[in-house]
Amino acid sequence: MELGQHISICVVLVLCMTSSTNGGNILVWYSEGSHWINMKTVLDTLIDRGHQVTVLAPTASIYMKTNESSRFRYEPFNVSFSIETMEEFFKGFLHFFMHEMDQMSYLQIYSRFMDIMETNLQFSLKYLDGVMKSDTIMKKLKEGKYDLLLADPIYPGSDLTAEILDIPLIFSLRFSIANNWERHCGQLPAPPSFVPAAMSKLTDQMNFSERVSNFVFYILQDMMLDNKFWKELDKYYSEVKGTPTSACEMMSTADIWLMRTYWDFDFPRPLLPNFKFVGGIHCRPAKPLPEDMEEFVQSSGDNGIVVFSLGSMIKNITTEKANLIASALAQIPQKVLWRYSGEKPETLGANTRIYNWIPQNDLLGHAKTRAFITHGGTNGIYEAIYHGVPMVGIPIFGDQPENMLHMKYKGAATILDFNSMKTEDVRDAVNAVINDKSYKENIMKLSSIHHDRPITPLDEAVFWIEFTMRNKGAKHLRVQAHELTWYQYHSLDVLAFLLTVVMLLIIILMKTCRFCFRRCCHRTLKKKED
Amino acid sequence: MELGQHISICVVLVLCMTSSTNGGNILVWYSEGSHWINMKTVLDTLIDRGHQVTVLAPTASIYMKTNESSRFRYEPFNVSFSIETMEEFFKGFLHFFMHEMDQMSYLQIYSRFMDIMETNLQFSLKYLDGVMKSDTIMKKLKEGKYDLLLADPIYPGSDLTAEILDIPLIFSLRFSIANNWERHCGQLPAPPSFVPAAMSKLTDQMNFSERVSNFVFYILQDMMLDNKFWKELDKYYSEVKGTPTSACEMMSTADIWLMRTYWDFDFPRPLLPNFKFVGGIHCRPAKPLPEDMEEFVQSSGDNGIVVFSLGSMIKNITTEKANLIASALAQIPQKVLWRYSGEKPETLGANTRIYNWIPQNDLLGHAKTRAFITHGGTNGIYEAIYHGVPMVGIPIFGDQPENMLHMKYKGAATILDFNSMKTEDVRDAVNAVINDKSYKENIMKLSSIHHDRPITPLDEAVFWIEFTMRNKGAKHLRVQAHELTWYQYHSLDVLAFLLTVVMLLIIILMKTCRFCFRRCCHRTLKKKED
Repeated sequence: MELGQHISICVVLVLCMTSSTNGGNILVWYSEGSHWINMKTVLDTLIDRGHQVTVLAPTASIYMKTNESSRFRYEPFNVSFSIETMEEFFKGFLHFFMHEMDQMSYLQIYSRFMDIMETNLQFSLKYLDGVMKSDTIMKKLKEGKYDLLLADPIYPGSDLTAEILDIPLIFSLRFSIANNWERHCGQLPAPPSFVPAAMSKLTDQMNFSERVSNFVFYILQDMMLDNKFWKELDKYYSEVKGTPTSACEMMSTADIWLMRTYWDFDFPRPLLPNFKFVGGIHCRPAKPLPEDMEEFVQSSGDNGIVVFSLGSMIKNITTEKANLIASALAQIPQKVLWRYSGEKPETLGANTRIYNWIPQNDLLGHAKTRAFITHGGTNGIYEAIYHGVPMVGIPIFGDQPENMLHMKYKGAATILDFNSMKTEDVRDAVNAVINDKSYKENIMKLSSIHHDRPITPLDEAVFWIEFTMRNKGAKHLRVQAHELTWYQYHSLDVLAFLLTVVMLLIIILMKTCRFCFRRCCHRTLKKKED
Repeated sequence: MELGQHISICVVLVLCMTSSTNGGNILVWYSEGSHWINMKTVLDTLIDRGHQVTVLAPTASIYMKTNESSRFRYEPFNVSFSIETMEEFFKGFLHFFMHEMDQMSYLQIYSRFMDIMETNLQFSLKYLDGVMKSDTIMKKLKEGKYDLLLADPIYPGSDLTAEILDIPLIFSLRFSIANNWERHCGQLPAPPSFVPAAMSKLTDQMNFSERVSNFVFYILQDMMLDNKFWKELDKYYSEVKGTPTSACEMMSTADIWLMRTYWDFDFPRPLLPNFKFVGGIHCRPAKPLPEDMEEFVQSSGDNGIVVFSLGSMIKNITTEKANLIASALAQIPQKVLWRYSGEKPETLGANTRIYNWIPQNDLLGHAKTRAFITHGGTNGIYEAIYHGVPMVGIPIFGDQPENMLHMKYKGAATILDFNSMKTEDVRDAVNAVINDKSYKENIMKLSSIHHDRPITPLDEAVFWIEFTMRNKGAKHLRVQAHELTWYQYHSLDVLAFLLTVVMLLIIILMKTCRFCFRRCCHRTLKKKED
């Protein structure tokens, strides 16, 4: 048996699928940041396969550039705030995680985090206003005769829109906090005993106290979301529909959930027929590098190169931190390609080059690449898994700390603390993942799991999108759990009924025994009396 | 969007996969009846793909003919009973279902069913003796250097053998009673509120009393299997291993469970990453019919034909029943092809021909086929779904009544009661499924679900078999639930701990309040006294 054989199968399938030409009319919900970057790859493939793609895009978006030429059509809508306001919010958000958090108490962090959540929700609702409260946009959408709405539910309202337009809905989702949306709206089973809540920083192997933490985490996050998120969203949805509406129930109408993880990155867990795990949807073979970059990479000789990026959101760090990192990188034998748009650090070594932008996937797929220093975004980690590159994680916010923990747990990465790391920590971490062969072996195992699938994640996602259009939904994959209340789902009403029956039987039995006993005793007593 | 486009994708994939030549060495566990018929299709494909296949086969087997030439190698082993004993058991088994059951009370049926279960288990253990207690066979198996053991767990012992040979294990399973094996050994979640227990004759849409029935069915069947099956098997396994062994835990070591259903036939339910639903694994396009049969089929004109078979196990029925059926078939305008090896019924019409054997799949795939009269075995139903032929079910035993209920619930079949049906019932049922267009429409919907998959069930099964060989197992698909006790799985220990903590906090709070209140009152009283 040779490993090579299955890969050829997948490649052939891709080529076969690309030849299709029958087109559907797809509407895509607006998104932001890495969510949008990820979505774009799928859209490209849908266009390759002959579909017409229209993307709803707010005028105030950092990542969605409606004025740039693209293969899909933008449907821009106005929002009641400027792009600068949005940028300011993101800046504050990053500042909190990168500079403030480590000087705060838990209570302060929690309170600040709640504020961020609240502000984010307000932005989301203002975006939604731009669609729902604009007669022009709603008219255009209704006249667009779309076959499907494709959405990352990170920005709410796509379900409401799909209902109004009476078209099927597909979600593409990385995760929600404590899997709240997947569990409550998608009915995805998640026993807290072995399914770690997203953002809990736990794995699927938990001791007793970890299981207690996980359980409590699920409950607290559910309570928090009920208070901060669902309540407000229910109100909004109810106003739009003019009838009391549960936003979670609206979310549950999604035909397919394309989950952007797989068992290379995540831990195996129960799933449902309409949940498709398509992690690595955006990964692709490396293309050749620009000439000067290739030259620099080749100059690394046998030592190879290190690729370094803190993602698309973090463009600058403090001069002090930049010098700390540059000085560490100067001490390693590899050449380093660092995506960084701040001022050139004084301590920058001759082996390190700074770039405003790097072709990250092509670099990670280069034969000379030895390690990847990353903030731990899902997209970057998946590219590293795809190409088999061990990682040094410098997670900053959101799911990044947890993503990196997954990689560390699977033996494919080490983690540095952004706020407390020192020069030697950075240097030692990079040296470790390059020189300790176990990191490479483990990432190659994950890479093998990633590639060794009957169908590539992108093909799988595209298949279910087209399936849903062909069949005007995917109701045959929908479990009946959606029609049950929580106590019915857990059979609590059945248990209560059965317990009552058993209790009644016991009482009747006892009463009968007592009656018989009394009659018996009575007779004996009577006899004695006689 | 046209439906045709996805099918071409699947076909191309099949061709690509068939070109593989790297071969593994596969050992196949013995089986019987339709289980063996189903398994053979997979083996043919594995051989086509260059694998070496060895099949363990008992000398006393009705379906496994070790002396017939075949593309795989048989490894025959002796058993301590004759094929006649086995045939006698099957005959008694069928007689009970076909002739005795309707005259018995529930208690008698239950008691007889328990006897059958017990006898069947004794046969299974005698088969297992033939492997485990034969030094020659065990030596041959150890020297065989197999890469994988493929087994339908209907006959126990494959897990034990896989452990002794230290090779990965794949199950191919239709179901176990109340999904007992899948739930307890495979850790497949099955909330009784919407997952009907296999053999309960319930659907996924249950009202309160049906949910009570389902719940009770799960519990009773678990208790019955604990008493009748697991206890005895644990004893056997413990004796062989020389240490206390749980047979269910041994079963849980299976790397992949290939479940022979899908959401065309079954109801959507929670699954696990190592459970692959490959229902219809044996279906294939129809081949041309033998010349005289084709001639007879063509002579049916626009009325078309009806295909009739009660499966491979039921060869004869009583003369009375045969006449009843023949007389009904004589009254329909279609031509009928009836698989029947009894004496020619007197009432047989000119439109009906009797055959000892029919090419069932090729007939069901014929353009002239209008209906299928079937006993409701899974294999036959899947062929009808594959080719889109509405059914009249005459279920007799095992899963047949439930299988037919699934089809009836999905609007693709009517059901007749074998013991009480009359001539006009048979005639009306056949006329109904042919003339009421809804049956054809519904079976075509199921057929579309069946075909509209990213990969055919056979290719998916073969992929995971080869995957498991390539990777020497599939541990990354195994949930951690396997490592938990039942109370840990349901977080009962965590709940008990949290409740204790809450209770303690309440007690401390109350004690503190009481203490403060007393001090307060005490002072007031003292002041008053002063």
